[in-house]
Amino acid sequence: MNLKDYIASIPDYPKEGVIFRDISPLMGDGLAYQEATRQIVSYAKELGAEMIVGPEARGFIIGCPVAYELGIGFAPARKKGKLPRETIEVSYGLEYGEAILALHKDAIKPGQKVLICDDLLATGGTIAATIELIEKLGGEVVGCAFLVELTDLNGRDKIEGYNILALTKF
Amino acid sequence: MNLKDYIASIPDYPKEGVIFRDISPLMGDGLAYQEATRQIVSYAKELGAEMIVGPEARGFIIGCPVAYELGIGFAPARKKGKLPRETIEVSYGLEYGEAILALHKDAIKPGQKVLICDDLLATGGTIAATIELIEKLGGEVVGCAFLVELTDLNGRDKIEGYNILALTKF
Repeated sequence: MNLKDYIASIPDYPKEGVIFRDISPLMGDGLAYQEATRQIVSYAKELGAEMIVGPEARGFIIGCPVAYELGIGFAPARKKGKLPRETIEVSYGLEYGEAILALHKDAIKPGQKVLICDDLLATGGTIAATIELIEKLGGEVVGCAFLVELTDLNGRDKIEGYNILALTKF
Repeated sequence: MNLKDYIASIPDYPKEGVIFRDISPLMGDGLAYQEATRQIVSYAKELGAEMIVGPEARGFIIGCPVAYELGIGFAPARKKGKLPRETIEVSYGLEYGEAILALHKDAIKPGQKVLICDDLLATGGTIAATIELIEKLGGEVVGCAFLVELTDLNGRDKIEGYNILALTKF
């Protein structure tokens, strides 16, 4: 199975000149979704991950089955105002704008080994912000797993020194 | 294990007089998250579910591990403008406002048995809209699974006749 076959490419979305890589065909196919999840689960086991963090909202789709399979917890990193309890926050630049990302203060225990899961590594802004949040809480980011890496956008440069898994590259 | 012990209650959030039921302690605990998922997986098997649909964004957290475990697909129901390909849309009333929910046109095949998963059954507005989207595409809604039901809000009345599982009730 080639996971790349399950990623749809949408020209000029969300703006002209951008090719949007859409993971919905992959998650819509039970076997492709299992295969992608299993690859990330193997990676998480190698790294000894004890907690999964996924940025809103497609990071939930990638990270939640990984947490479930491993029997470890999942914490959502969400846009400001979406988490009901006490949070820490970080401002960051998105591929198409600016935002504030938040994490519950009790989401990560000091010293906990954390794997970040998201659909896409683009410019790396969201992931750098997620790393900052986890480290502020004393967590150790042992790896970052993505379904898709957009290599032209050089997101790896923004998270240099961190362990990265990208299941497909465009 | 009593799953109710893993739901946090936040008074006066998001507005005065409302008690918000927060599922993040449950998903943050690997064993509680597995237990909740397994209960929904059993229900999905009984119903012969062939596809999971979860409303943005906490529905992803509940539905994705269920889809993964069963080896079936997951389709996200998202706010208008978030899905990149051709969609169908439905307007609906939220517990705190109004919104438009969308589903990719190719997310559901005609005749497919669909289980809806979400964190919370409140007034039932989101779920009624999700049912409408699925049925417009010719899918059969075989059940609706929730981590939490807020019984005072009578959400069941809005989706009368549909099979409902609520793992906890407040």
